[in-house]
Amino acid sequence: MSGLTHFDAEGRAVMVDVSDKPVTARVATASAHVVMQPETLAHILQGTAKKGDVLGVARLAGIMAAKKTSELIPLCHPLPITKVTVDLTPDEVLPGVRILAEVKTTGQTGVEMEALTAASTAALTVYDMLKAVEKGMEIGGIAVLRKEGGKSGTYVRNGA
Amino acid sequence: MSGLTHFDAEGRAVMVDVSDKPVTARVATASAHVVMQPETLAHILQGTAKKGDVLGVARLAGIMAAKKTSELIPLCHPLPITKVTVDLTPDEVLPGVRILAEVKTTGQTGVEMEALTAASTAALTVYDMLKAVEKGMEIGGIAVLRKEGGKSGTYVRNGA
Amino acid sequence: MSGLTHFDAEGRAVMVDVSDKPVTARVATASAHVVMQPETLAHILQGTAKKGDVLGVARLAGIMAAKKTSELIPLCHPLPITKVTVDLTPDEVLPGVRILAEVKTTGQTGVEMEALTAASTAALTVYDMLKAVEKGMEIGGIAVLRKEGGKSGTYVRNGA
Amino acid sequence: MSGLTHFDAEGRAVMVDVSDKPVTARVATASAHVVMQPETLAHILQGTAKKGDVLGVARLAGIMAAKKTSELIPLCHPLPITKVTVDLTPDEVLPGVRILAEVKTTGQTGVEMEALTAASTAALTVYDMLKAVEKGMEIGGIAVLRKEGGKSGTYVRNGA
Amino acid sequence: MSGLTHFDAEGRAVMVDVSDKPVTARVATASAHVVMQPETLAHILQGTAKKGDVLGVARLAGIMAAKKTSELIPLCHPLPITKVTVDLTPDEVLPGVRILAEVKTTGQTGVEMEALTAASTAALTVYDMLKAVEKGMEIGGIAVLRKEGGKSGTYVRNGA
Amino acid sequence: MSGLTHFDAEGRAVMVDVSDKPVTARVATASAHVVMQPETLAHILQGTAKKGDVLGVARLAGIMAAKKTSELIPLCHPLPITKVTVDLTPDEVLPGVRILAEVKTTGQTGVEMEALTAASTAALTVYDMLKAVEKGMEIGGIAVLRKEGGKSGTYVRNGA
Repeated sequence: MSGLTHFDAEGRAVMVDVSDKPVTARVATASAHVVMQPETLAHILQGTAKKGDVLGVARLAGIMAAKKTSELIPLCHPLPITKVTVDLTPDEVLPGVRILAEVKTTGQTGVEMEALTAASTAALTVYDMLKAVEKGMEIGGIAVLRKEGGKSGTYVRNGA
Repeated sequence: MSGLTHFDAEGRAVMVDVSDKPVTARVATASAHVVMQPETLAHILQGTAKKGDVLGVARLAGIMAAKKTSELIPLCHPLPITKVTVDLTPDEVLPGVRILAEVKTTGQTGVEMEALTAASTAALTVYDMLKAVEKGMEIGGIAVLRKEGGKSGTYVRNGA
Repeated sequence: MSGLTHFDAEGRAVMVDVSDKPVTARVATASAHVVMQPETLAHILQGTAKKGDVLGVARLAGIMAAKKTSELIPLCHPLPITKVTVDLTPDEVLPGVRILAEVKTTGQTGVEMEALTAASTAALTVYDMLKAVEKGMEIGGIAVLRKEGGKSGTYVRNGA
Repeated sequence: MSGLTHFDAEGRAVMVDVSDKPVTARVATASAHVVMQPETLAHILQGTAKKGDVLGVARLAGIMAAKKTSELIPLCHPLPITKVTVDLTPDEVLPGVRILAEVKTTGQTGVEMEALTAASTAALTVYDMLKAVEKGMEIGGIAVLRKEGGKSGTYVRNGA
Repeated sequence: MSGLTHFDAEGRAVMVDVSDKPVTARVATASAHVVMQPETLAHILQGTAKKGDVLGVARLAGIMAAKKTSELIPLCHPLPITKVTVDLTPDEVLPGVRILAEVKTTGQTGVEMEALTAASTAALTVYDMLKAVEKGMEIGGIAVLRKEGGKSGTYVRNGA
Repeated sequence: MSGLTHFDAEGRAVMVDVSDKPVTARVATASAHVVMQPETLAHILQGTAKKGDVLGVARLAGIMAAKKTSELIPLCHPLPITKVTVDLTPDEVLPGVRILAEVKTTGQTGVEMEALTAASTAALTVYDMLKAVEKGMEIGGIAVLRKEGGKSGTYVRNGA
């Protein structure tokens, strides 16, 4: 299957050999969002001020999930992550929460999956903490915005 | 913060006390999708036939992730899951892959988060396996379609 | 070794058979504290107000650690935890932070180890977040304050 | 929050960027102790001789916990640990058990948290194995005794 | 695929629905052995007496692995294990070590996989601890000896 | 205990200090097999063609287990694995399935345990997926076939 690196010539799943790839600085950023009713968003906005901190819990969940990426994604290599940030911003136009995750490493493969896992887990956590008031929230916009390092060089998503 | 069960009266995060909730049959289904270029989808369609099995790997990743939900979502209760199915269907109109996850338990809390985690991890795995041919794929449509059991009864998403 | 339940008659470590113990409601509370310089404590007091939330991060770490107890303590039984709370209170007399963890389950063994693990991990996290300003902090006072349920009945620590 | 590295300028929790820190040899030692009744300690002393090996089980638990540090402490970096030793010594004066953990790595951040996690988990395991004979044991003295490597150089605890 | 419960009618992997199966007492025992040179076995025999305790470490590894079964075997249900014992016996005729693991639960599915995982992980640990003196050891004889409980009733291996 | 690296001079278990070992390319291959009735093997042969894919699920389980080795084997160092392949071949003469796992890293210790863990977990998964039709299957032949890299150089098993 030309182009698909996670399969061998017989089409069997493999964890790709990266032994001979150089160790370089890698960074990736990924996005996600949670769309909700304005009344649900209001809970978050109040929370940040002085009640329960929905976004703080989701941020930690995202950071911790980045460290679990190779346990979740079967063919991912374990990587020594050197930085994770997860930003969650309320957006009254969406309405909902926009999430941006950035992950860095110095290694032989990229960290797109780590950034995507951080962003999506933060989104799932937002859902968990607000589901008592709205079950109809929807998570979307999970994408790689930017990726640097490695042989394939820099990738920037259209419009990002 | 009235309505938000994951915080106490002071706004501190808690794992809610479900000790006195009855043990009932619970089921939840959740969706996700991965939007990609038609050329990328072609890789999957060929793979199902005789090459690498992208959807088979993603299905397993989703099933295994359902079992990790309480490790990923900070305030989720650990639950003895009794069933998980994850279906991935290529959709040439999207174009991309549609994912449907169903999780069952007999317990004191619902399994929406388990179903959402299964669906979103399956989607992330599809991304991982195809990212060598397209980095611009986008994951969305992550939502609870249906939920049965427990005090709040049956929930069906609009249009689901 | 009479009295030590974690060894068989030959002195070999075992995970004790609890199959025939009745399923009852169980609760345990445990304490811990972190002693630090008044200047270090001042960082926390300011943080709760409007900067980084040391105690919020430590609270989540404690809650999540309770769910990992049977992975950490070799002969602990896995338990379906039904509630976890972790309270962290700054104490200017100590000076430092006092931690109180409460865990509940409905099961065949007690949850003392879960409560102790939650309290000690919250304390370790406080250390981690403040170690850039003080390496000499000391963690202590890790003890079971109260335990209810099961054949051995209620235990209350002297002075608790 | 000047001085606290685990928060950004807005006070949001982050996993600090260590990408540009040099890879150096790191070592940290940490202590813990478990205070118990002399009769409880007697169980251990007999056990080392020919019955159940409380200290052997606790030593392994500590070593294995060191490897789980970045899963337990939310903002810890995953590190390729190169050595762990955990020594447990009965002390009839305490009376109880004194614990000393040493962890080494060659990496971009220190291993204090790994040493503290090893020492405290070994202590919790001692508690678990002896709690059938004494619930009133208390764990304390958890501190970093020594730390070498990295920009901040060598730290030695007062009196250690 | 008639008879294979881990696939649906289309041949897709599923975690089987056990929601409607009764909760019954379950027990399973499994075996394994490690064949080695007599000189290698001598290291163990001496160790049990007064040096490093190879079998004690392997026993703990087996017990802890039983608790990880549902993380390792993709379609296994998570189960609340109520007992695990792992016995390792030096056998000068083999020559090597014979391993016997017993696991119990009260649940909706059997614990054969837990017993097999405990036995095989104990065997792998024996290999790890002795590989510095012999790389040619071989692990075999991993089988279910006995299984009780559940609809299929009692199974006893021929000759067990 | 001369020769046994996992114990110190007092016979206490330790995670060996590899800090001063050079970082070199390492590779190890390990084998395993599952012996079954010809009728059971027939299920696999049919499955590969168009029904449930037993070998595909077992392959993934083996790959993912390699990443968990240091969690399962108490004194194993965590390693940044750079490649894992697991091949499963039906063998009508055995009759059963032959498994071959290869693992690579660039690090300070070898990857024999990772290869053995991958091979044995793949074998356990084959058992799990076929146990509904045959409980009497037996797993054996778990051995290191080849090992390269590190101070001890290349090892090739007799006859491999």
